[in-house]
Amino acid sequence: MKVSIGVSNRHVHLKKEHLYILFGNDYELEKKSDLNQPGQFSSTALVTLKTNKSEINNVRVLGPVRSYTQVEISKTDAYKLGINPPIRNSGDLKNSSSILIVGPKGSVQIEEGCIIATRHIHILPSQIRMYGLEGKEKVNVKISGEKGGIITNVYLKVSEDSYFELHLDTDDANAHLVKNGDIGEIL
Amino acid sequence: MKVSIGVSNRHVHLKKEHLYILFGNDYELEKKSDLNQPGQFSSTALVTLKTNKSEINNVRVLGPVRSYTQVEISKTDAYKLGINPPIRNSGDLKNSSSILIVGPKGSVQIEEGCIIATRHIHILPSQIRMYGLEGKEKVNVKISGEKGGIITNVYLKVSEDSYFELHLDTDDANAHLVKNGDIGEIL
Repeated sequence: MKVSIGVSNRHVHLKKEHLYILFGNDYELEKKSDLNQPGQFSSTALVTLKTNKSEINNVRVLGPVRSYTQVEISKTDAYKLGINPPIRNSGDLKNSSSILIVGPKGSVQIEEGCIIATRHIHILPSQIRMYGLEGKEKVNVKISGEKGGIITNVYLKVSEDSYFELHLDTDDANAHLVKNGDIGEIL
Repeated sequence: MKVSIGVSNRHVHLKKEHLYILFGNDYELEKKSDLNQPGQFSSTALVTLKTNKSEINNVRVLGPVRSYTQVEISKTDAYKLGINPPIRNSGDLKNSSSILIVGPKGSVQIEEGCIIATRHIHILPSQIRMYGLEGKEKVNVKISGEKGGIITNVYLKVSEDSYFELHLDTDDANAHLVKNGDIGEIL
């Protein structure tokens, strides 16, 4: 059962209140390009992530705004920033890492919300049935190639509003020499 | 069959001619700390790796000097530098990437020698026999944990002069949330 791979670079989701602090009152995210997930887009807005140890510039804000602010980074980023975010599914932010987000008009210190995203597959309920994955929370996926392997703990993110795709962070992608559009095999 | 993991950050091996150009005539590498592999050490010497696109500072030179100059980086580093080094075993440098190495006293543009190291296990001939690995060029290794999995194409580097250890680059380590001294399982 093959699945296309999308590589997620570090990025930020913002709630409206934080968007306004960072970019100014009544600021609206401007679409740079559509993402594969319906309705989701990459915006022209960039922020800096900052800690006592270091900072990472030009981190993209994804749209649309959400009901929570979430910062998704890789373990490599986490070492650079000197923080230890947990591995979490999107929206599961309790006791995740604190970080300072700096925008052109202001900054926000979130007390929690910085995570390393779990490996996950966006999938339709109909595809869950079609592939016999009912009742499964997660699967293993085989990655081919010179630095391939089998990755475990790949969560199934079931939604009527999804484009079938495996999302990996840049650490997983670079470790396995995977690029956007490469193919994995659900085991 | 368990094996301890050593994480290899980007580093450089130098031949004497290049060491002298980079650090001055008759320069001798000064030991900073011993590595687990007998006779190998981390030195106090640092260089910069440079391309048209970017540069990486404070890259450590390992000792002792070798008969060839070799630069080992990760895929993440390769993206930053805008180069595409092949995945190679140590010493297998034909048609590998060119890079500029800059030291305090001079610089060397190597025409080839920059690689991404294969995943590999240093192992004694007696351990090959003990573990029944005779005739195998490579193995698969299971990594446990939240972002675990099975990594393939792990080369067996058999030598009388070795300390039994699995070497992973920082991409593999960070993708799998592995630190120095963590344990893998040879399958």
